[in-house]
Amino acid sequence: MSAPVVEIVAIGTELMLGETIDTNSAWLGAALAEAGMPVLRRTAVVDDFDLMATALREALTRADVVITTGGLGPTHDDFTREVVASVLDRPLEQNDDWVRVLEERYSQRGIRMPENNLRQAMVPRGGEVLFNPRGSAPGLWIEHEGRIVIVLPGVPVELRTLGEQTVVPRLRARFPDAPPVRSIRVRTTGVGESRLAEQVADLITAIEPLDVAFLPTLAGVDIRITARGMPPAEADAALARAESLFSERIGRAHFGRAGDLHPAVLGRALQARGWRVALAESCTGGLAAKLLTDIPGSSAYVLGGVVAYDNAVKTGLLGVDAALIEREGAVSEPVVRAMASGIRRITGAECGVAISGVAGPGGGTPEKPVGTVFIAAETPTRSEARRLSVPGERDDVRERSAVAALELLRRMLLNEEGA
Amino acid sequence: MSAPVVEIVAIGTELMLGETIDTNSAWLGAALAEAGMPVLRRTAVVDDFDLMATALREALTRADVVITTGGLGPTHDDFTREVVASVLDRPLEQNDDWVRVLEERYSQRGIRMPENNLRQAMVPRGGEVLFNPRGSAPGLWIEHEGRIVIVLPGVPVELRTLGEQTVVPRLRARFPDAPPVRSIRVRTTGVGESRLAEQVADLITAIEPLDVAFLPTLAGVDIRITARGMPPAEADAALARAESLFSERIGRAHFGRAGDLHPAVLGRALQARGWRVALAESCTGGLAAKLLTDIPGSSAYVLGGVVAYDNAVKTGLLGVDAALIEREGAVSEPVVRAMASGIRRITGAECGVAISGVAGPGGGTPEKPVGTVFIAAETPTRSEARRLSVPGERDDVRERSAVAALELLRRMLLNEEGA
Repeated sequence: MSAPVVEIVAIGTELMLGETIDTNSAWLGAALAEAGMPVLRRTAVVDDFDLMATALREALTRADVVITTGGLGPTHDDFTREVVASVLDRPLEQNDDWVRVLEERYSQRGIRMPENNLRQAMVPRGGEVLFNPRGSAPGLWIEHEGRIVIVLPGVPVELRTLGEQTVVPRLRARFPDAPPVRSIRVRTTGVGESRLAEQVADLITAIEPLDVAFLPTLAGVDIRITARGMPPAEADAALARAESLFSERIGRAHFGRAGDLHPAVLGRALQARGWRVALAESCTGGLAAKLLTDIPGSSAYVLGGVVAYDNAVKTGLLGVDAALIEREGAVSEPVVRAMASGIRRITGAECGVAISGVAGPGGGTPEKPVGTVFIAAETPTRSEARRLSVPGERDDVRERSAVAALELLRRMLLNEEGA
Repeated sequence: MSAPVVEIVAIGTELMLGETIDTNSAWLGAALAEAGMPVLRRTAVVDDFDLMATALREALTRADVVITTGGLGPTHDDFTREVVASVLDRPLEQNDDWVRVLEERYSQRGIRMPENNLRQAMVPRGGEVLFNPRGSAPGLWIEHEGRIVIVLPGVPVELRTLGEQTVVPRLRARFPDAPPVRSIRVRTTGVGESRLAEQVADLITAIEPLDVAFLPTLAGVDIRITARGMPPAEADAALARAESLFSERIGRAHFGRAGDLHPAVLGRALQARGWRVALAESCTGGLAAKLLTDIPGSSAYVLGGVVAYDNAVKTGLLGVDAALIEREGAVSEPVVRAMASGIRRITGAECGVAISGVAGPGGGTPEKPVGTVFIAAETPTRSEARRLSVPGERDDVRERSAVAALELLRRMLLNEEGA
């Protein structure tokens, strides 16, 4: 048996009106391809009973597995459940287990469950409820005449959680002979995609038939190396060899593997030394602290920080000399170094990270145009600073600056280790 | 004559593997809906001749206008032109005008045109070239048995330029009687989707034939109200009436219209009084400050803040009494009120916002389980605090708490206004 034919039917007027970009289909496509079940076709339709029913019916004539996304909310404009029940010709029945889950969640919050939530516990007869830990609409799994219909909510975080925890593992178990696709990621930061591609150009040929894709991420660029249709042991050996070739070539820009988050990697480096970090942020406005504290357990090594958006906060709280700001400008190397020292001093953290720049769209000058950012990091033994010229718009500038500042500290810790 | 039936066929393996998110379809959907020609259905397929041909053939049985995107590049894996020529049964012919355009562009850059660029000048017989000012693949417009096939490149900036400058105006001219679609949004925060739907249930009927959709957002829930097929003046009047009915019913949870960002609305309320804000964040770790400073120009009213992740920072920087933390716990109303007062005092901001809670996954207790969050806001005239029980995982708890804290301040400013 080879891979099942999988189709997606994405439901939602907001998708067709362009008010929502269909990130769900992209996520599902990537997750299923990695599991050896690439999606060949998807259809998106507005919230219209007949159009939805037609799209689902047509997909069922072609595919072994049809996954619908969206249209499971509690309100009148959500009726994917009804469409599925109608196309499969099964009555909708209330699932009492899910009613209890909902009632319990509401009672824990001390509020009455709105009546219309009961609609979310309706299931086409014979269908199975897939536990949704993050929302009130469960996923549904319905076996029908040799096909599988999987119904998923449209809220991205709910779809991903259900996809990762339930749908992909179950499909993988159901189609064990789908040709295995195994892949690894070499996560990198601080080097652009073109330069990275140049650096490893000869390796791409050397590791054939493995294939290589460059995937931009918030933190940098991931290199995904994939083995298709190889026996598992052989694939694993080839991937391990490829990983060591690539990581050796890339050097310090290589910070981790699939699943390694950049702030978590920094966190582990800090914990290895028993050091704590605090942040002083201007243009990033708290984003670097937010990224670090996204990681559960980060309270073990993050003390906190100061968002010094206004210069008065730089001088008043961080103790940066007002004359220095006057002379050098708030966006300057001396000031960002003083911010890094200041945050260490006032919090007692061993490590300080500081960021000051022009995120735009306003505030640029000929000497310091939009995208000019200074970052600094200080440990008990050394202090470093960098000037960045970050391309892109406000959000890009803020995100890349925050990651770059955390990366500066990570590399300093690597140096201390190597010393 | 009414609106034409428009379908999109999006082409590209990278779309199906999730390496590229299909922003083109979203953009086209929005542009066409505004022009009165909402897209009801779209199909996306991998780069496979037969799948592409089938999708195009099927779309032509249903639609008056079929727009394809992607697959027009110069390399061997791009063959949308060939598929269109085959489905419409027309030979491909070289368009000499476009060859000249390409040759001229290359000679201006002083380089020889690569041979494979000539493929991009091939046009199905009888088709018209649509000038692409930003790339080497022109758009194509082909009239075929009463239908229109429009072929657009997949590079987003090229697609948008062709769409704006050529495709949408020409379609609009071709279907002058297409009824306009107009919609508004009533943006709300702090009330769940189910409860909101209950609140306005009778209004949904009262404003028919306008239709209503509930769209969850990071900030809360948007209510989209749409007028279809009504003369513009009548539609505008009906939408204005609907907006005032809904906003009156919803009251303070209604914070803005389409395009209004919640932190920007708070910013305007602050600026209206000449007040500035500073934040003291524990569990949100800088996220509330990040949300406020996402807004360009926010330096006019955001002074900054303190991320007091560790209790030592709450006492050391914010001046919260250590004995108070000891007695009440860091996650408590007295402490969060003290944090709000503290951040005002140390920064000189007129308004302070503070957040302290258990974001999880660890750290919960029976009395204060994961999701327990205290928020406080203080202005020169008043101080308020709330205890929240936020469902969901760490990210949800952090996001909803940050928004709720900013919303608390926004409502206090409304009260001051009304007073």
